[in-house]
Amino acid sequence: MSDASVAGFELDARLANDAVFVADWRLSRVLLMDDARFSWLVLVPRRAGLVELLDLDEPGYAQLMREIRRAMKTLRAAATCDKLNVGALGNVVHQLHVHVVARRQGDAAWPGPVWGAGAPQPYAPVDRDALLARLRDAA
Amino acid sequence: MSDASVAGFELDARLANDAVFVADWRLSRVLLMDDARFSWLVLVPRRAGLVELLDLDEPGYAQLMREIRRAMKTLRAAATCDKLNVGALGNVVHQLHVHVVARRQGDAAWPGPVWGAGAPQPYAPVDRDALLARLRDAA
Repeated sequence: MSDASVAGFELDARLANDAVFVADWRLSRVLLMDDARFSWLVLVPRRAGLVELLDLDEPGYAQLMREIRRAMKTLRAAATCDKLNVGALGNVVHQLHVHVVARRQGDAAWPGPVWGAGAPQPYAPVDRDALLARLRDAA
Repeated sequence: MSDASVAGFELDARLANDAVFVADWRLSRVLLMDDARFSWLVLVPRRAGLVELLDLDEPGYAQLMREIRRAMKTLRAAATCDKLNVGALGNVVHQLHVHVVARRQGDAAWPGPVWGAGAPQPYAPVDRDALLARLRDAA
């Protein structure tokens, strides 16, 4: 997990367009999806060329799993959360990324999954910045 | 992770209805969803009362993550797989369970998620048993 592991990493253009930067953790870039319907983090391991979870070596995989746990705790502390959803799909965006989402009963996709559920509703900047501050504080 | 951890575990009735038994691993009961559209495993940690991934203690969480990795490798070896999908949702079935799905480009839900995508198509028994044999062999 040296700094060399970051060499060549470039965030997928679609993720960069749909989400905003929260923090860089040891392995992952942490993003907040710009969709006020859900409190929705995305973890992107900062290594070039990853597609599947199995592309990570065992220490990298274990580190990502720890960061998923950290993201779940962060969301619980910073957002309203009736249920946590975690998903690694990558059927559209190939770069390896993991979704960690705080769900609320009756939210815009409940009880279905958030993926593919209608159009995102961008945050009002003041709301987004307040949530980002809470997330960074809780992490 | 003593045997005592299994005390009181009872598989959710809906999971028991929708899936068939593959194996018991160290922590998880491994199930195959009875849906021939996808090669779809479900891991259910055999501890009573779990709902969220965060309900597992750290050793239990790490063990489940290792078993997810094992399930991904098993599916790759035993089924056709263009992309692996992993998800922990639990918005409908509360008992903690993790989906590990081998996706094929052009499958019945592609590129969307499998959850909530149409009606399951039960396997022909001969096909199901052949896949179960391959899964048990590959695990």
